[in-house]
Amino acid sequence: MIEGKLFVVGIGPGSLEDMTIRAHRALENCDVIAGYTVYCDLVRPHFQDKEYISTPMMREEERVKLALEKAASGNRVCLVCSGDAGVYGLAGLAVSMGQDFEGDQIDVEIIPGVTAAISGAALLGAPLIHDFCLVSLSDRLTPWELIEKRLLSAAEADMTIVLYNPESKSRAGYLKKACDILLKTCDGNRVCGVAGEIGRDGEKYQVMTLTELRDYQADMFTTVFIGSAGTRRVGDKMVTPRGYESEK
Amino acid sequence: MIEGKLFVVGIGPGSLEDMTIRAHRALENCDVIAGYTVYCDLVRPHFQDKEYISTPMMREEERVKLALEKAASGNRVCLVCSGDAGVYGLAGLAVSMGQDFEGDQIDVEIIPGVTAAISGAALLGAPLIHDFCLVSLSDRLTPWELIEKRLLSAAEADMTIVLYNPESKSRAGYLKKACDILLKTCDGNRVCGVAGEIGRDGEKYQVMTLTELRDYQADMFTTVFIGSAGTRRVGDKMVTPRGYESEK
Repeated sequence: MIEGKLFVVGIGPGSLEDMTIRAHRALENCDVIAGYTVYCDLVRPHFQDKEYISTPMMREEERVKLALEKAASGNRVCLVCSGDAGVYGLAGLAVSMGQDFEGDQIDVEIIPGVTAAISGAALLGAPLIHDFCLVSLSDRLTPWELIEKRLLSAAEADMTIVLYNPESKSRAGYLKKACDILLKTCDGNRVCGVAGEIGRDGEKYQVMTLTELRDYQADMFTTVFIGSAGTRRVGDKMVTPRGYESEK
Repeated sequence: MIEGKLFVVGIGPGSLEDMTIRAHRALENCDVIAGYTVYCDLVRPHFQDKEYISTPMMREEERVKLALEKAASGNRVCLVCSGDAGVYGLAGLAVSMGQDFEGDQIDVEIIPGVTAAISGAALLGAPLIHDFCLVSLSDRLTPWELIEKRLLSAAEADMTIVLYNPESKSRAGYLKKACDILLKTCDGNRVCGVAGEIGRDGEKYQVMTLTELRDYQADMFTTVFIGSAGTRRVGDKMVTPRGYESEK
């Protein structure tokens, strides 16, 4: 084991105040901050005296390797991810690659953060009060057939579904495809919601029906919620019941 | 709309540093802290000058009503939940009951926190890197048949599964029952993990097989992770692959 250490830090949705105190302290006490350019830019104003290693989109393995190299040479390194690093983030690569990095083991600690399902749900009311699942619509690393199967299974088991990565420039129309799959078993009036730019400028949320969601223009900063059969509108929010007396 | 306000605050797993900065500030600036006795005791040492309304287990509707009453009389009230208030927490009741509380609307804000799935995953490595679902084994408010259906569907769709409330004194043997259901479609060597007392004294985690999990003595402070087919052991941790080249 060598002297440096890699912290894989979930910074939450984006604003400093949605970060945990532990994440904030790790960033304060480190030598190097590594991450995707956009995430580095979110933390840079608050931690200006650090060395930054920012890398463009994709290239996840390269990003983790650069961070581990800095740790291997004795630095305290924070690899930042938006939301939580363990949910579609870099925690997996960091734990695996750090276990045997060029013959050494690097000490890797994951610092949990508030993922978009949780922060988006807080904006929208309480869609995740009962059993739910997270499904990413990105088929860059996952066959579409598996994504489709997961959507169908979740709908059949009446779980609330949170969709990550609903659309991107190269995956236009994916949210509509997903809604069409869900409409096979769910009513078009199913209560759904979207949250966007959570914790950043332009933060927004909107509750709508599944039919309306089918035509919603999402982007890569949108998180989508499809309620369970019992989810209902409360004012401009959505709430999934837990089963309490007053909810019957 | 009246002057007081209810903040429903997810305090994270338990230690002060796993709370978000926003949650900490809300607790600092409030007049009254309400919640289940155990959660009030977690925050009391750090916020001693507050009025506390702590209530015993169950009685969730009464707890929310007491908090709303305090807000209705002009106070800034924090209703604290462990983890995140929107995941099996009180956010749903608070949003619904606050919408029309004795003829008034009470301003309710949900402050998201790190739920046990996220903090437990960080301890265990990276089990939630790909699609996953949360299922509570508590049948106090949910029919067991629905819980069973959700477990089967999630296993068939090869999602990582996180179990909340795996056991309690009155629900002894529920984790074993759940494992038996999963063993219908999952191999006994499936990589699983447990995390307990996260962020508190006695914090622990352990990676094991599904067969070993069947005989594990869980309690109400245990969070259980059942990996997907691809989840593997890395040292004493568990990692679910995302699909990167180096993971193949």
